Amino acid sequence: MTALLDTLRGVVGAANVLHEGDLSAWEQDWRRRWRGKALAVVRPGNTAEVAAVLRACATAGVSVVPQGGNTGLVGGGVPDASGTQVLLSLQRLNRVREIDEANLTLTAEAGCVLQAVQHAAEERGLLFPLSLAAEGSCTLGGNLATNAGGTQVLRWGNARELCLGLEVVTAEGEIWSGLSGLRKDNTGYDLRDLFIGSEGTLGVITAATMKLAPQPAATGTALAACASVADCVALLQLARARLGAGLTGFEMMGGYALALTAKHFPTLPHPLPEAAWTVLLEHSDTESEAHAREAFEGVLGAALEAGIVHDAVVAETLAQGQALWHVRESIPLAQAEEGPNIKHDISVPVSRIPAFVEETDAALQAQFPGVQLVNFGHLGDGNLHYNVQAPRGEDGRRFLAEQEHAVNTVVFDAVARHGGSFSAEHGIGALKRDELSRRKSPVALALMRRIKAALDPQNLLNPGRVI
Amino acid sequence: MTALLDTLRGVVGAANVLHEGDLSAWEQDWRRRWRGKALAVVRPGNTAEVAAVLRACATAGVSVVPQGGNTGLVGGGVPDASGTQVLLSLQRLNRVREIDEANLTLTAEAGCVLQAVQHAAEERGLLFPLSLAAEGSCTLGGNLATNAGGTQVLRWGNARELCLGLEVVTAEGEIWSGLSGLRKDNTGYDLRDLFIGSEGTLGVITAATMKLAPQPAATGTALAACASVADCVALLQLARARLGAGLTGFEMMGGYALALTAKHFPTLPHPLPEAAWTVLLEHSDTESEAHAREAFEGVLGAALEAGIVHDAVVAETLAQGQALWHVRESIPLAQAEEGPNIKHDISVPVSRIPAFVEETDAALQAQFPGVQLVNFGHLGDGNLHYNVQAPRGEDGRRFLAEQEHAVNTVVFDAVARHGGSFSAEHGIGALKRDELSRRKSPVALALMRRIKAALDPQNLLNPGRVI
Repeated sequence: MTALLDTLRGVVGAANVLHEGDLSAWEQDWRRRWRGKALAVVRPGNTAEVAAVLRACATAGVSVVPQGGNTGLVGGGVPDASGTQVLLSLQRLNRVREIDEANLTLTAEAGCVLQAVQHAAEERGLLFPLSLAAEGSCTLGGNLATNAGGTQVLRWGNARELCLGLEVVTAEGEIWSGLSGLRKDNTGYDLRDLFIGSEGTLGVITAATMKLAPQPAATGTALAACASVADCVALLQLARARLGAGLTGFEMMGGYALALTAKHFPTLPHPLPEAAWTVLLEHSDTESEAHAREAFEGVLGAALEAGIVHDAVVAETLAQGQALWHVRESIPLAQAEEGPNIKHDISVPVSRIPAFVEETDAALQAQFPGVQLVNFGHLGDGNLHYNVQAPRGEDGRRFLAEQEHAVNTVVFDAVARHGGSFSAEHGIGALKRDELSRRKSPVALALMRRIKAALDPQNLLNPGRVI
Repeated sequence: MTALLDTLRGVVGAANVLHEGDLSAWEQDWRRRWRGKALAVVRPGNTAEVAAVLRACATAGVSVVPQGGNTGLVGGGVPDASGTQVLLSLQRLNRVREIDEANLTLTAEAGCVLQAVQHAAEERGLLFPLSLAAEGSCTLGGNLATNAGGTQVLRWGNARELCLGLEVVTAEGEIWSGLSGLRKDNTGYDLRDLFIGSEGTLGVITAATMKLAPQPAATGTALAACASVADCVALLQLARARLGAGLTGFEMMGGYALALTAKHFPTLPHPLPEAAWTVLLEHSDTESEAHAREAFEGVLGAALEAGIVHDAVVAETLAQGQALWHVRESIPLAQAEEGPNIKHDISVPVSRIPAFVEETDAALQAQFPGVQLVNFGHLGDGNLHYNVQAPRGEDGRRFLAEQEHAVNTVVFDAVARHGGSFSAEHGIGALKRDELSRRKSPVALALMRRIKAALDPQNLLNPGRVI
């Protein structure tokens, strides 16, 4: 191993091979659920160095765990406890290489923080639409390796749909220069989408060409109170039919989730405290402020008239709109303040959401009387963070420790019955690997294993993750 | 082989195993560029039968060529001349299995004709946006196997972007049931996108779940005359910024291409005969007829004022709009009437289109003085059908036979210099396989070969195509 470390120092410089002192920033995830021990943290500065690091590791038979901003939720980016894995941090690959305004594309390196990419586009008057809670520290490479979702998927799709081309280093340390600003390219198999979402197990993404869009002329934000989940879905259909692609956000929040934010963050607005369900709608208009307001109020007026919505507030200023988004984004933090809970990141077809919520709520109450449900999420994508908290008065930590598996079984069985996914946007990592092998079809698993063996025959890329 | 044919008759019925008489409907492509000889044409009626056919062929070591509507342009769906391949026609798998209106999804079998899928959506008041010239006979399975493009890619993406889930039969005859109505699902590797665009070489697509959209409230169509390709690109930027997702079509047509349609189809409208370049714009509005007209005329007015456009006509009725599209769609037929020509289906970043056209026109004129260029295509996607016709007075057939390779070299070299693709939407098939191995990066080719070997180790699925 000393020889390998010497080689790595030769590649990236001694200052960028860390193997002593406190490495917890890389060895532990931010929620402190996983803590590993790396042979070394290696920080290459460009793609050629990444390739050289992977060649050295392949020769030595040492496995590599790629890491971006270390903001993952499933333990996919931290090393195991063996002390034998190289933690490959991509953070120094942080250049925006090119913005092509007429082509509406941006090429950036894997270590660019998502917010920096958004800002680089904004400076040219353009929009990079990927947006999620961790955007201040997550990286573009991590977003692509996990096919990140977030709040703009309804209009713009996941990270996958925003990506046109990739630069990837293979398990053997070869560079695939697949960067491309093309909307159409049918020359062979879709390697790009195979690497996207593979969580560093098939190759290391070092750069990407992403789609941009013109900035909207105006953005409107509103909250609407609905009596039931079915009414939330009816509102979605109405808003989608009338606003088309102008509907850029549609987030559903349960009454208990908003009660928690009101409790723990009392300075945040809480304008519809009686609502069983609150929907945050965002409308982006290409035309004008006046047109945006008229169209948006038309939708809300029609929904009120149809009885789908019984109360609504429209943000009067950009700041008010941001405050409403802030409420939505504060739910996970309010939950953390309240205590431990069992998190889920599930999706079902939008049409199945009402039945899924009703059945699963009932099944959980039957099995765990008094259980509290923090249910919120990206309804427009059929994606709910359907989180389960201990019954009032019970110890949250003990509930988590004793009941997590039983709760997951109830939730994931219901998801399967409704044709859904047990991991909509967070990925598999270490946390859901067993769930994958249990719940994915054996045919799909066999195909995945063949692909893994074909692209990483030594099993050196993030072994033990995903598959 | 007799034993295999008996087995296949047992699976699909004797009436659906054809091996005598005139099989040219399956053995020859519609342009009559490739003519093969099949061991038999086999027409299964459902997914289980497809699986049984593939199991039988795998056991016998006989290769299989899947075929949909046989409308491909690159020879990917016809058997070779050996008489040893099974031609697997998917045309009897033609059921629309389900439409989920609230989820905006449709599940249909591979053999459904594209137009039938469009109509099934329309009957529910919904839009299935994939649209291309062959839609009356091409099939959904073929659209996905080739990742078809067409005229709505600017707004809706290629076939890939419209697909949420697949049902696929593997080389060994196993069924992967990956149908899904989910917008978000991060559970393992992206098998779906690997099969999409693989032209039947990795598995056989038997059904798919596709995205639908609400029908627009109004659609506008216009032609605009531009003095240069650069002005066409400037018009694209202006229209995109002002109409956003409402811009659903942006087709550029060269003056010579339109002169050919006027010559061969004199009853078609030809309202801007003096234009060096004509752009067909389509605008789909979610709001109203009146709003659509105002927004669309606003864009054209601004373009006229800015000098980007020097003349324009807006369709007054739906029928007039369809007639303008008909002009665009008649260009390939007019070309065929005029005589043989060397077709290209290239893409470059939109920002590079003006330089690409200028340089390539000049290079071709220098090498083949008097050569005539039929240049038209989906400018919004950077995709041009940059077709090359013999110099006036020369024999077209001889020019094609003698100069195709030299012309391709000029065009494809220019494409490569501008970061483009030599096959934007037609795929590789038999026609461009050598081009792929010559022009794709060796790293990408090696990865593709490993994937092919992993998923089809006997090399029985459409061998000799793509890779």
